[in-house]
Amino acid sequence: MEKNKLKKLRLENVKITDKFWKQYIDLVDDVILPFQWELINDQVDGAEKSHCIQNFRVAAGEQAGNHRGMVFQDTDVAKWLEAVAYSLAKTQNPDLEALADQAIDLIAKAQAEDGYINTYYQITGKPRWENLFEGHELYTAGHMIEAAVAYYEATGKDKFLKVVSKFADYIYTVFGREEGKIKGYPGHPEIELALIKLYYATNDEKYMDLAYYFVTERGQEPVYFLQEKGKKENKFIFSEFKDFDLDYAQAHLPIEKQMTAEGHAVRAVYLYSAMAELAYEKHDEKMLKQCEILWENIVQKRMYITGSIGAASYGERFTSDYDLPNNTNYSESCATIGLAMFSNRMFQITKDGKYMDVVEKALYNTLLAGLALDGKHFFYVNPLEVIPDIANNNPTMRHVKTIRQLWFGVACCPPNIARTLAAISNYSHAVDEKTLYINLFIGSIIKAKILGEEVNISLQANYPESGSIRLRIHSEMIKKEPYTIALRQPSFSKNISIKVNGENADYLCDKGYIYITRKWKKEDEIEFEIDVAFRFVYSNSKVRDNIGKVSLMKGPWVYCLEEEDNGEYLSSIIIDSKSQVKEVYEKSLLGGILCAKLKGEKIQYENISNSLYLEERPQYIEDIFTAVPYCLWNNRNEGEMIVWVREK
Amino acid sequence: MEKNKLKKLRLENVKITDKFWKQYIDLVDDVILPFQWELINDQVDGAEKSHCIQNFRVAAGEQAGNHRGMVFQDTDVAKWLEAVAYSLAKTQNPDLEALADQAIDLIAKAQAEDGYINTYYQITGKPRWENLFEGHELYTAGHMIEAAVAYYEATGKDKFLKVVSKFADYIYTVFGREEGKIKGYPGHPEIELALIKLYYATNDEKYMDLAYYFVTERGQEPVYFLQEKGKKENKFIFSEFKDFDLDYAQAHLPIEKQMTAEGHAVRAVYLYSAMAELAYEKHDEKMLKQCEILWENIVQKRMYITGSIGAASYGERFTSDYDLPNNTNYSESCATIGLAMFSNRMFQITKDGKYMDVVEKALYNTLLAGLALDGKHFFYVNPLEVIPDIANNNPTMRHVKTIRQLWFGVACCPPNIARTLAAISNYSHAVDEKTLYINLFIGSIIKAKILGEEVNISLQANYPESGSIRLRIHSEMIKKEPYTIALRQPSFSKNISIKVNGENADYLCDKGYIYITRKWKKEDEIEFEIDVAFRFVYSNSKVRDNIGKVSLMKGPWVYCLEEEDNGEYLSSIIIDSKSQVKEVYEKSLLGGILCAKLKGEKIQYENISNSLYLEERPQYIEDIFTAVPYCLWNNRNEGEMIVWVREK
Repeated sequence: MEKNKLKKLRLENVKITDKFWKQYIDLVDDVILPFQWELINDQVDGAEKSHCIQNFRVAAGEQAGNHRGMVFQDTDVAKWLEAVAYSLAKTQNPDLEALADQAIDLIAKAQAEDGYINTYYQITGKPRWENLFEGHELYTAGHMIEAAVAYYEATGKDKFLKVVSKFADYIYTVFGREEGKIKGYPGHPEIELALIKLYYATNDEKYMDLAYYFVTERGQEPVYFLQEKGKKENKFIFSEFKDFDLDYAQAHLPIEKQMTAEGHAVRAVYLYSAMAELAYEKHDEKMLKQCEILWENIVQKRMYITGSIGAASYGERFTSDYDLPNNTNYSESCATIGLAMFSNRMFQITKDGKYMDVVEKALYNTLLAGLALDGKHFFYVNPLEVIPDIANNNPTMRHVKTIRQLWFGVACCPPNIARTLAAISNYSHAVDEKTLYINLFIGSIIKAKILGEEVNISLQANYPESGSIRLRIHSEMIKKEPYTIALRQPSFSKNISIKVNGENADYLCDKGYIYITRKWKKEDEIEFEIDVAFRFVYSNSKVRDNIGKVSLMKGPWVYCLEEEDNGEYLSSIIIDSKSQVKEVYEKSLLGGILCAKLKGEKIQYENISNSLYLEERPQYIEDIFTAVPYCLWNNRNEGEMIVWVREK
Repeated sequence: MEKNKLKKLRLENVKITDKFWKQYIDLVDDVILPFQWELINDQVDGAEKSHCIQNFRVAAGEQAGNHRGMVFQDTDVAKWLEAVAYSLAKTQNPDLEALADQAIDLIAKAQAEDGYINTYYQITGKPRWENLFEGHELYTAGHMIEAAVAYYEATGKDKFLKVVSKFADYIYTVFGREEGKIKGYPGHPEIELALIKLYYATNDEKYMDLAYYFVTERGQEPVYFLQEKGKKENKFIFSEFKDFDLDYAQAHLPIEKQMTAEGHAVRAVYLYSAMAELAYEKHDEKMLKQCEILWENIVQKRMYITGSIGAASYGERFTSDYDLPNNTNYSESCATIGLAMFSNRMFQITKDGKYMDVVEKALYNTLLAGLALDGKHFFYVNPLEVIPDIANNNPTMRHVKTIRQLWFGVACCPPNIARTLAAISNYSHAVDEKTLYINLFIGSIIKAKILGEEVNISLQANYPESGSIRLRIHSEMIKKEPYTIALRQPSFSKNISIKVNGENADYLCDKGYIYITRKWKKEDEIEFEIDVAFRFVYSNSKVRDNIGKVSLMKGPWVYCLEEEDNGEYLSSIIIDSKSQVKEVYEKSLLGGILCAKLKGEKIQYENISNSLYLEERPQYIEDIFTAVPYCLWNNRNEGEMIVWVREK
């Protein structure tokens, strides 16, 4: 294991200037955060009621009432606060900060004497910790902790941090292997990675120890969830949980024996994210190896080309190797975020670019597809093929929405997308003592501490429309020492070219990164060329749903066909992948976007027979088809969409 | 409307001699009926408990206990009795008859004072008729009535008929438009067609009137089920019923406004079956037209090539036009039987062969696929593509069984298959005053009353392996009058040839039937040749799941590829439909079966890359593939199966 893992830059030290990403990040500040505040305060007409703030008022004794919404409804305000924190870290906004303080005051007021916070259990008076499999108590606590740490780091205010520390101290007295403690662990992992953040913020090792306990106790015999179930007498919060086996919550085996990614996809990747950090902190080589095994299983056998995971809706879960249906899948936005979190942590520990390739794939495709360009509509489920008439009438696809929705009853995804966008530089850059890592080619102005000095660099790009990345150094080391800039060579770019100040430069390649070490001077310029030419990509032939089909990619972007551009019955299109793909920049489309024009043919639907079964082969006609980036689909009218297209 | 509809022959007047069908029909007598008796008496190790007879014992006061099993568990014994009746009609079997009498005595003993029979409501004491949407009380009553009518017709014993008549008389006092009656109708149609049978058996018109009321009240405003739901306070017998709209139970509109087949597929076709007969009996031309519209919608837009219906598992229901997924569908055996019932009734009224084409398709494919060659294992759900590793691990397909099961908790299908097979001649033949209709080419010896005289005819065939049908007349009219033999020309057979005594004969063609009228003499022989050459069949191009794919048929048989013959990854096979299909009779396979050998190619799976996504096109190798009739699939080892194969 590397001795020192990479660190993220402080959010305020990365200013995103990138045309493509800035539009989304600005949406967070300008639209999503104010909008989500209204949502969690039940002030948006036409949206499902959140009840989130309302529940805290009741729990705080400010008003009477019942608990409303899901058992984990509290996490809506937590994820909103976390996103607010990231926003405030980058840009002062006293009004927003005042709202956040108000929410924090309310949470503090709702906190029980002993530190406990959970409006569902507090209001209903149901006994705590008796339904870890379903109750989401520790999951909700985790999101509170994450929010509080973020808020503390952004504002320096420690009220919320103290509130959650008290909560975590209390939880520490409840769970563990010691006599008198509950030998349980969360049904939905989340608190593990939150406790590690709390440890980083406070340096109090007991938080990390508690996380390590939760992870290592998982799946041990006798299995806690079976004991718990024995006492439950078939009373379930969620009726479908009756059907779920232990693997749904990754408790079917001790984690060191789990060789494949199983169960609920979000739970899995949240757990693995914590495992990765714990492996590093506890120098647990075996656990790190386990993380690699699980990551490889996901990425080589169970991940969509869009970086999404969870092939089944029922259980929102992983299924089996190479089972990747395109229209009935779940592919939850939150699971993609979790996969990015897990991969990013693995990258920080190993400095292996393969992890960052997956981060990039997840962020550039499924993360952004979750959000409409208006910032107010969201996808939760991200299929790779949608036919509205079928998805809206066949209940096998009742989880699929054919247009982005204003808000969801179970609202985990929208605020999760917001908090991820608000802190995108946690993914795009990293540092160690003497190296600045450029992971994602997002236009930005960066301050980083290298060898104890502040280094200023800007990155200009129009990626992935163009593969030309330009870095400019704006500072010079007082101590004139060499330091390293590490540039990721994406796995799809077989060739790259690098020039420093217009000349070929020496560099080292290692695990997908180009390392250039020199005494960088002010105005030094790096020209980095990545091959982002359109390319056709196949699935492994074991993925039955994609046999005979091909997808189109440009850099990390997966392209798709939409009905808007190509008419209905997209599944009847056959692409000629041997023809040249023509790039066309459509200025007026979706805020200006690079389209691909593809030669091919399509069934001639005019005058086809009315017979359902017939002996005549269908007729095809040649045509040119337009593909757009998957992340932008469904920003026009409701219609069909496909990623995997039949190939000539 | 035709003045006189066709009638079925009495079961004892058709002796099935056909090699192919006899094996199944013998299974009913030799295996299924004794086995099902053991099953409903809970005497089979390894099968889910039925509790059916047990519930009747409790209801009859013979022993103490609770009700066990589903609300409609009583129908297991009813369908068993119905099948027993059909068997006894054809072959005396005193032991079996004694068991049936024993069951009937028990049912009679369990009957309430006022005529009511339903062990669920009788044992639990729950109020009757308050949950028509879910409770299946009228559905269960319907199966009792059908069984009693069948038993009366087979044995002449009227005890059971009197029991159900008393029950029906009571129901007549409960339901209707008159003041003081419940203005409801069944959630699951079934009693309607049963009441019509009761009317035919007893000539008591009130039974038909009650059926007509149930059908015509359906979906009228104010909608009964909504009023009922309002009183239910969210207490559901089946939790998923909360999600189901009125169309699930065909109550979204009055039946004359229903233009598409919607909702639960079995419910739909049972309802339409009753509608067809009521339209005829009540001279209701509009209702007959409605039946045609609904039948056309099913057959031209919502039916699988195997004659199965119900594209979605959730709701076991119809979805939208041309939505026919092959691996997530429900395609319940009972729904196929219902479609055959509906089509047969439409044929009897209209004498249009198109209806019988669908009966044949349903019976030769999905009905038989429901039953293993051992007679003891059943499919309930009948997909057209199965990949065991996926179906067993992806809960989207949790309704799919990858091997036939011994018995089901919800055991509607196995006894439904049994009663259909036991009375197959209700489909294969029909008569009117002067015509004998040969609908299905099942080898048989037939007695029919034509022009008041008994006519004896035998049919010899090895259909659909061969298209040569031979009929021989064994009787001669005393009054020497001409009469007509009508032979169905299946729509797949563009050409036919007919010879009588070796010479071309005059005939008329009308709506898919060949009518030959003459003074038939003893030893006259008809040679009828149907074109059953293997043919490739396409779906309408609007069926997205089958685009680029082709299926293979021979006569009514749909063929499929199995892993057993072709290895795994069947979806990677491409068939060359322009090559000659080679017929190979495999004597030792599945009791002797005609296989098709197809030229084509398949992805070369040895040494494929481990990458999940890659830029190299897969390699194909040429091979010869073996197809077997769909109805026989899964009689060897568990493995993949596909009907729709990619085409070169």
